Amino acid sequence: MSLLVVGSVALDTVETPFGRAEDALGGSATFFSAAASLLHPVQLVGVVGDDYPTDALAFLAERGVDLAGLETAAGESFRWSGVYSYDLNSRETLETRLGVFADFAPKIPEQFRDAEWVFLGNIDPDLQIGVLDQVRKPKFVACDTMNLWIEIKHTRLLDLLKRVDLLMVNDAEARQLSGEHNLTKAARWIMDRGPRYLIIKKGEHGAILFTPNSTFFAPGFPLELVFDPTGAGDAFAGGFMAHVAKSGGLEDADLRRAMIYGSVLGSYAVEAFSIERFKDLTAEEIEERTRQFHQMTVFELPVNAGV
Amino acid sequence: MSLLVVGSVALDTVETPFGRAEDALGGSATFFSAAASLLHPVQLVGVVGDDYPTDALAFLAERGVDLAGLETAAGESFRWSGVYSYDLNSRETLETRLGVFADFAPKIPEQFRDAEWVFLGNIDPDLQIGVLDQVRKPKFVACDTMNLWIEIKHTRLLDLLKRVDLLMVNDAEARQLSGEHNLTKAARWIMDRGPRYLIIKKGEHGAILFTPNSTFFAPGFPLELVFDPTGAGDAFAGGFMAHVAKSGGLEDADLRRAMIYGSVLGSYAVEAFSIERFKDLTAEEIEERTRQFHQMTVFELPVNAGV
Repeated sequence: MSLLVVGSVALDTVETPFGRAEDALGGSATFFSAAASLLHPVQLVGVVGDDYPTDALAFLAERGVDLAGLETAAGESFRWSGVYSYDLNSRETLETRLGVFADFAPKIPEQFRDAEWVFLGNIDPDLQIGVLDQVRKPKFVACDTMNLWIEIKHTRLLDLLKRVDLLMVNDAEARQLSGEHNLTKAARWIMDRGPRYLIIKKGEHGAILFTPNSTFFAPGFPLELVFDPTGAGDAFAGGFMAHVAKSGGLEDADLRRAMIYGSVLGSYAVEAFSIERFKDLTAEEIEERTRQFHQMTVFELPVNAGV
Repeated sequence: MSLLVVGSVALDTVETPFGRAEDALGGSATFFSAAASLLHPVQLVGVVGDDYPTDALAFLAERGVDLAGLETAAGESFRWSGVYSYDLNSRETLETRLGVFADFAPKIPEQFRDAEWVFLGNIDPDLQIGVLDQVRKPKFVACDTMNLWIEIKHTRLLDLLKRVDLLMVNDAEARQLSGEHNLTKAARWIMDRGPRYLIIKKGEHGAILFTPNSTFFAPGFPLELVFDPTGAGDAFAGGFMAHVAKSGGLEDADLRRAMIYGSVLGSYAVEAFSIERFKDLTAEEIEERTRQFHQMTVFELPVNAGV
């Protein structure tokens, strides 16, 4: 049940009210892999410059991230820097330097082309489609996107949507893509254009899973200290996809559990800068937090509900 | 298990992107009673001017709202008018005319003073305390408040908090009251000041119940059309309090169910102007939506959770 991720591998400089991290490990494929590999092996495809501290990724390789698809190109690595507002609800990008990422054209190694579970991190829809042209018979394809692609690559994004099983976006992106403010309407609009499943992430307010049969709400985990929100969405994707890859099931019950694993990994991501929290996160801690999610949401209706 | 509500009975003029209602029935006690009385009898205390269309409240009396505490004073009724933004997430108050409400000093009729379940709608904390001085031995007291009282009656509000079991506020109010942006910290701050229980309402994002033992998240109900958000919070309070009054239990399991009834009644409130939706809402519709809430949130953990 191999799980493939294609996305950015970057160096992030992040400032939050709690401190600053410089040239820390970042990028969608990095956060995804750091989270997912706690549950399931991962095959990573991405590109870094010859300045990248690849040694720092060794711990990922040790726990089952196959880095055979991580290309090193001559030049600078992708760098992003940003600063968060005091309440962490908004951030300003200070600088984006694409470096070698500007010419990234994902090449899927032969041994990855039979991947059954595929996550297309937030990159140009043309490149995401290029990945789908290379994998042979995926069982399940999920993708992310962002405001930039919704704006400048709308048609290609719609082409892509016809070929994916799940779109995973935040509420602002769902609204922008559909032109609908109401999220239920936005969900219908998006699912009418291809994806059988849709996840709308709402940050601290949790995430919603739409399937053809039902809607499922996972709350945000109540943290007293959010240290750095960077990468939470990709860690969520990692937890979600690793759980479906591991369980192999696509019934609503499987996807709901995957939502909880996504929420758990996303919540751990923000407890420290970069992928730091995933370095020593244990299976027991993950398990414990899934139980807390259950405890936070469970209720019984009266046998004779209503009046 | 008598349930008492003290609050405003007003006439609202509301403009939303979907239309306009003029001098429609409004006020916290009105919304509370219209919702609660679908589940349990209510005793209402409030004041209206001699211009109030009290006939329009007859349907409430018919279904168990005891209006013996609704005083009619010479003068104008409390009038509020406001306009909602296109996305319904913000509203501007155009006018507030207190009328006879300016001199409101709730007098609890003798036959209401043994009320076991008491809800203090959003009025001056001095008046809320005045109510508590008149009721004899309530089993459970809940109260609402607002930014104005947090600002100008802070000390009295803190006095009140020592005497209530549950505070029910929205996220902005919880933050303002506690001075904490993080809602988990805000909750601790508030519960350290008296209330054993706290509900933080987050509009479309649902509501959170904090008890000494646990935290419970109820999602917002996904409506395709929100017609008029006015009164949703008071309808929530009505559904919540009516369920606890009816069940008589204050265990976490009881309060969680009450959260769902609150969410259900709050969600119905916004489907029409004023209290219109409650006029023909049936027990079966309420029951059906509690089941939908269950369906939207239920998940099973793997027997052997985690990796």
